[in-house]
Amino acid sequence: MDYSLLWLDWKKRGGLPPWTGRVEGTPETPQGKAALRELREGLAALGAAPGTGCLRLREEPGNGEGWTLTREGEDVVLAGPGRGLLYASFSLLEKLALGREVRPEASAPRYPLRMLDHWDNADGSIERGYGGNSFFFRGNRPVCDGRTRDYARLLASVGLNACCLNNVNVFGEALELITGKYDKVLREIGDTLGEYGVSLWLCVNFAAPLDQGGLPTADPLDPAVRAWWRETCDRLFAAVPGLRGFLVKADSEGRPGPQTYGRTQAEGANMLAEAVRPHGGTILWRCFVYNCTQDWRDGKTDRARAQYDTFAPLDGAFGENVLLQVKNGPVDFQVREPVSPLLLRLERTRSIVEFQLAQEYTGQQWHVCYLAPLMKEVLDFTGPTGAVKDRLEAVCAVSNTGDDCNWCGHDLAAANLYAFGRLCWDPDLGSEALAREWVKLTCGPDPAVEETVTDILLRSREVYEQYTSPLGLGWLCWPPTHYGPSPDGFEYDRWGTYHKATCREIGVERGPSGTGYSDQYGPELGALYGSMDTCPEELLLFFHRVPYGHRMKDGRTLLQRIYDDHFAGFAAAEEMAAAWDRLEGRVPEDAFRRVRERFKEQVRSAREWRDIINSWLYRLTLIPDEQGREIYL
Amino acid sequence: MDYSLLWLDWKKRGGLPPWTGRVEGTPETPQGKAALRELREGLAALGAAPGTGCLRLREEPGNGEGWTLTREGEDVVLAGPGRGLLYASFSLLEKLALGREVRPEASAPRYPLRMLDHWDNADGSIERGYGGNSFFFRGNRPVCDGRTRDYARLLASVGLNACCLNNVNVFGEALELITGKYDKVLREIGDTLGEYGVSLWLCVNFAAPLDQGGLPTADPLDPAVRAWWRETCDRLFAAVPGLRGFLVKADSEGRPGPQTYGRTQAEGANMLAEAVRPHGGTILWRCFVYNCTQDWRDGKTDRARAQYDTFAPLDGAFGENVLLQVKNGPVDFQVREPVSPLLLRLERTRSIVEFQLAQEYTGQQWHVCYLAPLMKEVLDFTGPTGAVKDRLEAVCAVSNTGDDCNWCGHDLAAANLYAFGRLCWDPDLGSEALAREWVKLTCGPDPAVEETVTDILLRSREVYEQYTSPLGLGWLCWPPTHYGPSPDGFEYDRWGTYHKATCREIGVERGPSGTGYSDQYGPELGALYGSMDTCPEELLLFFHRVPYGHRMKDGRTLLQRIYDDHFAGFAAAEEMAAAWDRLEGRVPEDAFRRVRERFKEQVRSAREWRDIINSWLYRLTLIPDEQGREIYL
Repeated sequence: MDYSLLWLDWKKRGGLPPWTGRVEGTPETPQGKAALRELREGLAALGAAPGTGCLRLREEPGNGEGWTLTREGEDVVLAGPGRGLLYASFSLLEKLALGREVRPEASAPRYPLRMLDHWDNADGSIERGYGGNSFFFRGNRPVCDGRTRDYARLLASVGLNACCLNNVNVFGEALELITGKYDKVLREIGDTLGEYGVSLWLCVNFAAPLDQGGLPTADPLDPAVRAWWRETCDRLFAAVPGLRGFLVKADSEGRPGPQTYGRTQAEGANMLAEAVRPHGGTILWRCFVYNCTQDWRDGKTDRARAQYDTFAPLDGAFGENVLLQVKNGPVDFQVREPVSPLLLRLERTRSIVEFQLAQEYTGQQWHVCYLAPLMKEVLDFTGPTGAVKDRLEAVCAVSNTGDDCNWCGHDLAAANLYAFGRLCWDPDLGSEALAREWVKLTCGPDPAVEETVTDILLRSREVYEQYTSPLGLGWLCWPPTHYGPSPDGFEYDRWGTYHKATCREIGVERGPSGTGYSDQYGPELGALYGSMDTCPEELLLFFHRVPYGHRMKDGRTLLQRIYDDHFAGFAAAEEMAAAWDRLEGRVPEDAFRRVRERFKEQVRSAREWRDIINSWLYRLTLIPDEQGREIYL
Repeated sequence: MDYSLLWLDWKKRGGLPPWTGRVEGTPETPQGKAALRELREGLAALGAAPGTGCLRLREEPGNGEGWTLTREGEDVVLAGPGRGLLYASFSLLEKLALGREVRPEASAPRYPLRMLDHWDNADGSIERGYGGNSFFFRGNRPVCDGRTRDYARLLASVGLNACCLNNVNVFGEALELITGKYDKVLREIGDTLGEYGVSLWLCVNFAAPLDQGGLPTADPLDPAVRAWWRETCDRLFAAVPGLRGFLVKADSEGRPGPQTYGRTQAEGANMLAEAVRPHGGTILWRCFVYNCTQDWRDGKTDRARAQYDTFAPLDGAFGENVLLQVKNGPVDFQVREPVSPLLLRLERTRSIVEFQLAQEYTGQQWHVCYLAPLMKEVLDFTGPTGAVKDRLEAVCAVSNTGDDCNWCGHDLAAANLYAFGRLCWDPDLGSEALAREWVKLTCGPDPAVEETVTDILLRSREVYEQYTSPLGLGWLCWPPTHYGPSPDGFEYDRWGTYHKATCREIGVERGPSGTGYSDQYGPELGALYGSMDTCPEELLLFFHRVPYGHRMKDGRTLLQRIYDDHFAGFAAAEEMAAAWDRLEGRVPEDAFRRVRERFKEQVRSAREWRDIINSWLYRLTLIPDEQGREIYL
C-alpha cells in the first residue's frame, strides 16, 4: 500500500475495557457488516484482549444514520440501522484510541447530506488539486480499486456520506460518464462507496443533450431535451445503483447553462430535477454565477452582488429535489470573506453550503491553514433569520485529497478533512477539540506533539491571513496559479476582483454609497457592514474603500495595521516552522521531513508576501513603517 | 501548396526588355543552376517574350557571393561565382518586377554571414513563434520537403545565407540532432538549403558530453570532454556537409555552461571552436548571460550591465572561429533599448548582432511593428569606436516564420523578414525604400496600396511604442506570455526588470549615481546618457529614475507626456486599422481579411494598453490628464 490511512491507522494501546475483547452481532446490511469488520479489525489493532462482557451490534431496520450506545450488564450495545452502526463503530474506535471513557450515548447527524466534491478530471489531473493526481481517474477512465474502499472508510469514519466523483468543469472523457460508456466501473465505485454509506454523485455538462445527445439544443424547456435527460437518467440510475444525483455548474465561468436559451436558473435546475426524481435523485445546483468577463473599467458591477441578485428573486421557484449550492462567501474561497448573504436569504429553497478544503487561495497545502475556524464562523453566523447552521439542509466541501501517499500533500492538511467531516455531523463541535482529536489519532498520545501541532493548527489561518491579503481585501495572488503575491495581478482583468488602490485609499466601496452590496444582508446587518465605523475590522477592506490614514479601533492607521500584520504574520510562520522542527524524533520520520519541507516553502513564500505587500503599499504612499522595519523600494 | 511564396510570387507585367526573352549559360554549381532555373521561371512568370539579345549567366570560379551586371551589345551579362549568380538573379527579377531600369551594377554583401535563427523545437512548437508551428520539425523529428526548398528560395532572394535550425534552448528530441540519429535528414536539409547558398547551423546543449555522451562531466577543459566533442564533430560534419557550425546558449536562463565548472565563457567557447575548426566550422556564442534569479529586493544588481561585465574583460580571449552573438540591446528585444554597449566595446573579438524578427515584445505578429527602423538605428549607431555596422562581422535575427499559410501569421510581418535580409546585404538601404519594395513585390503596383501600407509600416513601431511601455521603460507586459499590459507583472519577480514606480517617481537610475550602467558607453556617450538633461528622451526611463513632474524638452511633464503618448498611440492604431479597411478590394481578399482581423485585435489590445498604463500612473499620482480625457479609476 503506497498511502497511509491517516487517522484510521489504529495504534496499539493498553487498558481497553474488558468488553472490547469480543464483538457479537449478525448485521445484514453491507454497512452493518462493514461496521462489524471495522470493529473487529480496529479493536484487534488497538490491542483489545478477551475479557468479561462483549460488544454487541444490534442492527435495526431502516435507512437512518443515528445510533445509540448503551450498557447491558457487562456488555456494551451499539444499536441502529446499518449506516448508524457504521458511524457508531468508528466513533467507538476513536474514543478507545483516544483513551476516553465510553458512556451511554445517542448520536445522529445534523445534516442528511454531508459531501465531498472532487474536482478530479478524467485525465487524472485535479483542478486546484494539491495532493497529487486523482485516485478516481487514471489513464483517462474511472477506476475502482483498494484505494476507493479506503477512501470510503476515511469518509465514513468522520461521518461523511456522499462524494461527487468529477470536476464541476466537465470536459474530455468526463463527458462520457453519463453516456453508458463507464456504467460498469461507476457501478463498482458506487457499490464500494455504498458499503461505507457513501453515495455517489456526478457532475454533468448542462449542454450534454447537444454535445453528447446530438440534439440541436440544450434548452431546458425543449421537450426533446427533457426526454433526453429522462432517458439518460433512467438508464444511468438503473445501471449505477449507488448514484444519488448530479452536481451542476451552469452559466458559470464559461460553462453552458439555461441563460443561453433565455431560461432562468430555476428552469434549468428543475428540468434536471424532474429527470432524476423517479430515481430518488437530487440536483445540486451551484450558485456560482457571475460575469467573468467584466470590463475592469466598469466600476458599477460588483461581483460580490451577483449570486444574491441572481438567485434571491428565484427563492421558492426550485423543485423539492433541488438544493442550491452556495459557496461560504460571496466571492470565491478567500481566506476572509463575509458569509454569503444568499445563505441568510433563501426561505423557500433548500440549500447546501460549499466550503473548499483544497486550499486554492489559502496556501495550496504548502502553507498550513486549518479551516475549521473558518467553517465554524460560517456555520455559527447568525442573521435575523437565524444561524446559518440551522438554515442549511446539507454541507459540502471541495476535497483536498489526491493520490499522494499522505492524501493531502501536506500532512497537516488532513486535519481539514477530518474536522470538516466531524463538523458536518455536529457543527457545534469546537475547532480546538477537533484539532486535538485529529492530532492524537494521527500522531499518538505524545503531549508535546499534541500541544505543538494543535497550537500550529489553531494559529494557522490567522497567520496566513496576516501575511497575505489584508482585512478581507482578497485577490492579491498571482493569477495563473492563485499562489504567491501579485498585488495588481487581478487588477485590470476580467474577474471582477479589484482593489483600485491609489496613493490615498484602497478597496471597493460596497456600502450604501457604493455598490450597495451590504444591503443584501437586510437592515440590521446591512447597517453594521455598511458603515466604516461599525464594520468588523477583519472585513473592513471587503466592504469599504478606506484611506490609508484611517484610524483603526486601536489607534493605528490602516496602513500601519497592514504593515504590522505582515511583519507579524511572517514572524509567526517562522515560529511555527521552528516549533515543528522541535518535534523531530517525536513524529514519524517521513512525515516529519515532509512537513519540514512544506514549512520551508511556507516561510519562503510568507517572506515574499510580507515584503511584496508592504513594498507595494509603501511605493503607493511613501509612508514608512512607524517602527522603522525594512520595507524594500 | 498550402502556403504563399510571399514576395516571390512574380506577377505578370508587360514591357520587359527584349533581352529577357532568352537566358543562356551553363553554370556548373548547384547555386548557379538554381540561378538559371529561377531566372527562367521568374522571367516567364513576369511575362518575358522573345526579343533581341539575351541574358547570359557567366559563372566564375570561387565561393564568393558578389556579382556584376554588365551590358554586352544587346545582351545583359550576370557574372559571378554560383552564389553570386543566385543573388544577381533574384536582384534582377525584383528590378523587373518593380519596373525599374536595369543598369550596369556590381554588388557584394556587406557581411559574410547573414543568418536566421529558428527557435523551433523538435516537438514542432516554436518558442515565441507567432506564425504557426515549425516547418523544420514535425512528429518530433526534422523533416525535409518542398517547404524547406521554398524557404531556402525566400532566404536567398533577400540575400540571407545561413539558418540555424533549432531553438537555442535545446531539449527533448533536439538533443539527438548531433548524435547521429538524424544525420540523414539533416544532410538532406543541408543540401536543400545549400542549393540556395544557405548554410546549416545547429544549436547544441553545452552539457551534451554529460547528457548524451555519458561522461561524468561537461567541463570544457576536461580531455575526455574535448575528445567527445571532436569525435562528435568529426562524424557530424562528415555526415552533414551543409553544416557550418553551432550556436550556443550557455550559462543563460538555466542552460548549462562553463560556469558550472568554474571556467570562463572563453574557455567554453574555445573548446567547441577547436572541435569544429578542422571542418571549417564556426561557433556562435551567445552573450545573453545574466542572473535570472535576481532577488527583486536587490537594488544594486543591474541586469543591463551583465553582458558587458561578463564579456568585455574577455575581449581577445576567444578563438578566431568564434563569434560573440550580442542582442541589439542590453536587455531583451524591447521596443526601445539603447544599443548594447558590448557591440561598441569588443575590439579583438569577432561579433554578430542578434535582432528578433519574432515580435516577442512588440505585438507578437498581431500588432504591426515594422522593425527596419529599429535595426537601422542599431546598425547606424556610432560611438567613439565607429558605427556598429562597421564593427560587425555578421548579422542574425530570430526568425518570425512558421507553417502558417502566410509564413508569419500577420501578412505585414513578412516585411520584417524581407527588410532584414536586404539590410544584411546592405545596411545602408533605407527603411522606407525597403517597405515600398516589399509592398509592391507582394501586392503589385497599385499606388494606393503602396502608399497606405508603406505609411502603416513606417508609423508602426512608434505607434506600438506610444501605447505600450513609455520612453524605454520596458517590461510592462504580462509575464507568462509577454503580450498585453501588466504594469507590475515583472516588478517583484526574478528577472531583473524593474521600474520601482512610487507615487513620486519611476524608473531605475542607471547613471553614475545609480548602477553606473551608462559608464559602459565610455566617457562621451556615458556622459550623454548619464545625465537626465542630455539623455535622449526616448530613452529617459531606460537610464533614469525620474519624478513625474520632470519637464520634458517641450515643457510637458513626464506624466503628461506618457498620458499623451498613450492616447495618441491608441488613436494611431485606430487610424491604421481604418486605413487598411479602405484597401478592401485592392488586395487579395484572404490577405485583406486576415490583416483586418489582426488590426481588430491590435486596436482592442492598444485600448487595454492605453487605459491600463494611464490608470496605473493615475492611481499612483492622482494627477489627472491636463486635457481632461478619461482615465479610469
